[in-house]
Amino acid sequence: MGRGKSSSVEIIVVGNEVLNGEVLDTNSNWLAKRLYASGLHVRRITLVRDDLREIATAIREALRRGTEWVVTTGGLGPTDDDMTLQGVSFATRRKLTLNSEGLEMLRERYAKLYEMGVVRERELTPARLKMAMLPRGAKALRNRVGSAPGSLLKHGRSWIVSLPGVPSEMKDIYENEVEPLILRNAKRVYRYVGGLVVRGVPESTLAPLLSSVSKKSKLVYIKSHPKGIEAGRSVVEVIVHGEGSSEGEVEKLVESVLRELHDRVKRLMPDSIERIEVKSGS
Amino acid sequence: MGRGKSSSVEIIVVGNEVLNGEVLDTNSNWLAKRLYASGLHVRRITLVRDDLREIATAIREALRRGTEWVVTTGGLGPTDDDMTLQGVSFATRRKLTLNSEGLEMLRERYAKLYEMGVVRERELTPARLKMAMLPRGAKALRNRVGSAPGSLLKHGRSWIVSLPGVPSEMKDIYENEVEPLILRNAKRVYRYVGGLVVRGVPESTLAPLLSSVSKKSKLVYIKSHPKGIEAGRSVVEVIVHGEGSSEGEVEKLVESVLRELHDRVKRLMPDSIERIEVKSGS
Repeated sequence: MGRGKSSSVEIIVVGNEVLNGEVLDTNSNWLAKRLYASGLHVRRITLVRDDLREIATAIREALRRGTEWVVTTGGLGPTDDDMTLQGVSFATRRKLTLNSEGLEMLRERYAKLYEMGVVRERELTPARLKMAMLPRGAKALRNRVGSAPGSLLKHGRSWIVSLPGVPSEMKDIYENEVEPLILRNAKRVYRYVGGLVVRGVPESTLAPLLSSVSKKSKLVYIKSHPKGIEAGRSVVEVIVHGEGSSEGEVEKLVESVLRELHDRVKRLMPDSIERIEVKSGS
Repeated sequence: MGRGKSSSVEIIVVGNEVLNGEVLDTNSNWLAKRLYASGLHVRRITLVRDDLREIATAIREALRRGTEWVVTTGGLGPTDDDMTLQGVSFATRRKLTLNSEGLEMLRERYAKLYEMGVVRERELTPARLKMAMLPRGAKALRNRVGSAPGSLLKHGRSWIVSLPGVPSEMKDIYENEVEPLILRNAKRVYRYVGGLVVRGVPESTLAPLLSSVSKKSKLVYIKSHPKGIEAGRSVVEVIVHGEGSSEGEVEKLVESVLRELHDRVKRLMPDSIERIEVKSGS
């Protein structure tokens, strides 16, 4: 699909536990869904280990590709192996410095935890202070759920957003601090998605038909998902995605493609196709 | 952790649906778990769109990093947007050619589907033949569940394994065709994993202790996972991973680290720590 003019995004997930298969990463899927719904273009998702060089390299590669929004999750905590912000610092050649807003957030947080009796001392130990060490020029993003603040850094034409790996903290910061900024600053497109399910016509028979219909417009792409064989008939889901600069236009385009697919499949085999509900993109 | 001498792996997941957040990728987690359990080192997981340039670039980057096993999932089907093998072909500068084993597999497959009445014609149309177009020198891997064969290509010191995106097909080919090859050919380490749960001592207080204990051995790494606050006490899981060339040695090492952690946390706060069951790596 010739993507209109939406901002490109890359998501970088940091953590040995996801690469060892101990933990299923659901953060990137949650973020991708939100970003897609906001009309951005998620180009790549990368999962790397808790290794300074691996993290810095992944961020540097995303910046070199001209990615407008680089969103990291994981590696913001107080332990030695939390080194995402050091990775951002390496990739952007900015020193880590004690961020005064971040410091204030941590002060408030540990004062509260002390009052609640969760911690036995309220002072900011080196491990706690580490969480306020942000790349120079970054803004600390308030974490209402846990301790580590997020970080937002404008670097050249790119924004680098760093979020914690704990899903509830990641979502809290994204929803309250990041999404409003994205909705205001990113280049966004309108999206419309529709789906069909085809029974009795296998994907390999549909392929040339999908190919010819998808050539109608560069703003549409058609994706088929084989769902196996049910009662001796192959089942294939066909999803049509459209994007453009006007809501009504995109809907019209996608609906016309769906109608054409519907008619052409029906000619192949009557009663083989029906519309299905697809959660629309935007 | 100074990883012993285990072979490095990268997993590349291909599909717009994962980058749009429509589908949660569970394939890479399943593969990572199996590869970790087999004693290999999963270095990076990359999710890219159905775009020839994106796919070829991701594969080329993995090869440039000297990755010994590059495993792709998705993009092997009959439609135009299935272009993973074309990506392998670009990245390795090998032409796509009609693979005779692959062709035979597809002949058998469509003969069977024809007998079952799933397809109305048994001949191999261009869309079906496309699934037998493999990079020159590749071996076709039998798919017992669906149509598209997998592909196995030795390129320099690297192996490139391409699997379908449908999870049942991916798992079938991996278990029957790929894992035996990996167990025979890859450099593997023994692994041992143990865990503790700490209540009432927050991660920021544990951090310096974990840091000092983890310096004991390069073959061990310790990872803490904050689990939030329960009944006014913070809960942190601490997982100790070890690897080495002998099973008994690794177990001894990890158990000694767990005992040291246990004793030192108990001194901080009695009755705050207990062992938990962790599924061991190998």
